[in-house]
Amino acid sequence: MSNPRFEKLSRALAASNLQAVVINPGPTLTYLTGLHFHLMERPTVVLYTPGQDPVIILPELESAKTIGLPYAMTVITYPENPVEWVKAFQKGVDTLKLNGTPIGIEPRALRLLEYRYLEQAAPQSSFPDASLPLAELRLRKDADEIAKMRQAVKIAQDGLEATLKLFKVGMTEQEFSNELVVQLLRQGSQPEMPFAPIVSGGPNSANPHASPTHRKVQPGDLFLVDWGAAYEGYISDLTRTFAVGDVDEKFLNIHQIVQAANRAGRAAGKPGAPCAAVDQAARGVIENAGYGPLFRHRTGHGIGMEGHEEPYMRGDNQQILEPGMCYTVEPGIYLLGEGGVRIEDNLVITANGAESLSDMPREIRTLG
Amino acid sequence: MSNPRFEKLSRALAASNLQAVVINPGPTLTYLTGLHFHLMERPTVVLYTPGQDPVIILPELESAKTIGLPYAMTVITYPENPVEWVKAFQKGVDTLKLNGTPIGIEPRALRLLEYRYLEQAAPQSSFPDASLPLAELRLRKDADEIAKMRQAVKIAQDGLEATLKLFKVGMTEQEFSNELVVQLLRQGSQPEMPFAPIVSGGPNSANPHASPTHRKVQPGDLFLVDWGAAYEGYISDLTRTFAVGDVDEKFLNIHQIVQAANRAGRAAGKPGAPCAAVDQAARGVIENAGYGPLFRHRTGHGIGMEGHEEPYMRGDNQQILEPGMCYTVEPGIYLLGEGGVRIEDNLVITANGAESLSDMPREIRTLG
Repeated sequence: MSNPRFEKLSRALAASNLQAVVINPGPTLTYLTGLHFHLMERPTVVLYTPGQDPVIILPELESAKTIGLPYAMTVITYPENPVEWVKAFQKGVDTLKLNGTPIGIEPRALRLLEYRYLEQAAPQSSFPDASLPLAELRLRKDADEIAKMRQAVKIAQDGLEATLKLFKVGMTEQEFSNELVVQLLRQGSQPEMPFAPIVSGGPNSANPHASPTHRKVQPGDLFLVDWGAAYEGYISDLTRTFAVGDVDEKFLNIHQIVQAANRAGRAAGKPGAPCAAVDQAARGVIENAGYGPLFRHRTGHGIGMEGHEEPYMRGDNQQILEPGMCYTVEPGIYLLGEGGVRIEDNLVITANGAESLSDMPREIRTLG
Repeated sequence: MSNPRFEKLSRALAASNLQAVVINPGPTLTYLTGLHFHLMERPTVVLYTPGQDPVIILPELESAKTIGLPYAMTVITYPENPVEWVKAFQKGVDTLKLNGTPIGIEPRALRLLEYRYLEQAAPQSSFPDASLPLAELRLRKDADEIAKMRQAVKIAQDGLEATLKLFKVGMTEQEFSNELVVQLLRQGSQPEMPFAPIVSGGPNSANPHASPTHRKVQPGDLFLVDWGAAYEGYISDLTRTFAVGDVDEKFLNIHQIVQAANRAGRAAGKPGAPCAAVDQAARGVIENAGYGPLFRHRTGHGIGMEGHEEPYMRGDNQQILEPGMCYTVEPGIYLLGEGGVRIEDNLVITANGAESLSDMPREIRTLG
């Protein structure tokens, strides 16, 4: 009746000198419990301290999800009236005798909604940052997880190829984006995708986080697609940049440079190398070509159950790469008001290097 | 160069005796600024105090989104290295001289990530709950907003009708759910939908918040679909429950009761009535039929840019309905381990009653 993932959490907490942790809905909660909840106006949390059954506090109407779990968990529910909710938090804290014990939190996920109930229920506790031990849980993917990520990459690639066949000059970014989502679903993506595709043409492509607009794609545009799929809770996150008809020579030039930067970034990952080495390899190519200031973001981020997670490929990050770590390599050059190029792959650290899970052609392809 | 929505915020804050507020990515931020950001590991916030330009703190790579805004906003950016981020928050707090001023927060949206940077930057400030004045902003929809919601309902209804034509006994819940998402996109839904459809057959339909499974839909099942669409940032959220082939008499009976409860709930909304009256009207029908304990959730929730928002249709909620308020009426009866029925519509309070934006048949329909 024990859950090996909570055992893993116990070890991670011990290594960080933490005795307790609270987790709200998100990938960490799903990884640990196998349960999936949305963030809502009704708070749901799991409280855990090693050696005791985890406690889940949740709305009554969600309680059916906890029936038949293959491990022991104490379930505390509350009714619809919010004045009753603090009592459920009190009961949870009391069950594990946590008042006065520091309770680790995940600042990126925990909201003030849950936090203030916890503060009321455990006024003697502090709430230290437990991001590191919690990230540790999901940092090295096992073979089963990598197989799911590989499938999420395949679905994404097949979905984009199917959509490219339907590309027409004059389509809007939103039309292409909607069609891409349809094709991703047809290829087997889960409906809850990691993010809505970024589909940006012409000057919009110079905005790394553009939302698709009603702008019509036209000849001369760079056309950037940053998209992903989800398969059994694991995701992919890729980018390719296309030319629409004949494009300016300078666009072809930055595309070549970004291809080389992507290649260098992919080659730099291996066990024992710091994350910084991946960033430096990709960034060095762009800096040497004179475009350093126009590569305005880190080279990549970890990927798994979450779109962005540990480890981060930043020049200041000395975290050491280890087998099973998965991350993106996504250098870009953005000419503000004109157009941008980004090429993004998903990698996994192997015994002696890094394997790209994605293999769609990176060379510039002409559409329309 | 002023933004009328920030003027509206100023009035709402004054009515709550608040002088400042902080907002992170979500519907409130989008409503106020017209900008859209995802919740990420990089914090983004808008700080506002009446009489001064709003301040936005965001990653450098997102800053292109703030170019060409039709109103004045102070933009503070930070680079990729997290050690630099607190400086941006300090600059934001200093720009508006907020240290020592209570800064209202939205507990449902604000994370510890943003909160701890704010605490560092404004150690003399308190952070009171500003949920009420912030909900006030979006509580009464104007004609333009209602037109968008009407379109979101139409897309949802047309998408489900198209999917029902493809229904086959033996499909899995996930297959139906994926096809429904495809058809919603075909009808013009934005890819960022309010929630992934709940498609649950047989015993799964007795779990109000089930996730679609690999279970095959079979004759004798109740088949519940809770789905929505998004149109220009506004959403719909509907539920219909179908019969697959011949179903047990008791399922037909609870379907009749839920239809009557839905009808009573829809009829109870009007200006001046409390939210509780809507809940009591729907719940009364189910209680009178002897199924009260099996209607395990509130009758509805507000709806607009967010899936769940003010006002909430709970028996304890004395909030008064006013023209322009939009909400769901969604009574249900759940026979644990057997099957459940829910029928959900989206309503808007008019000058003298409540209009249902949704009109898809509510009577039981037999599939397969």
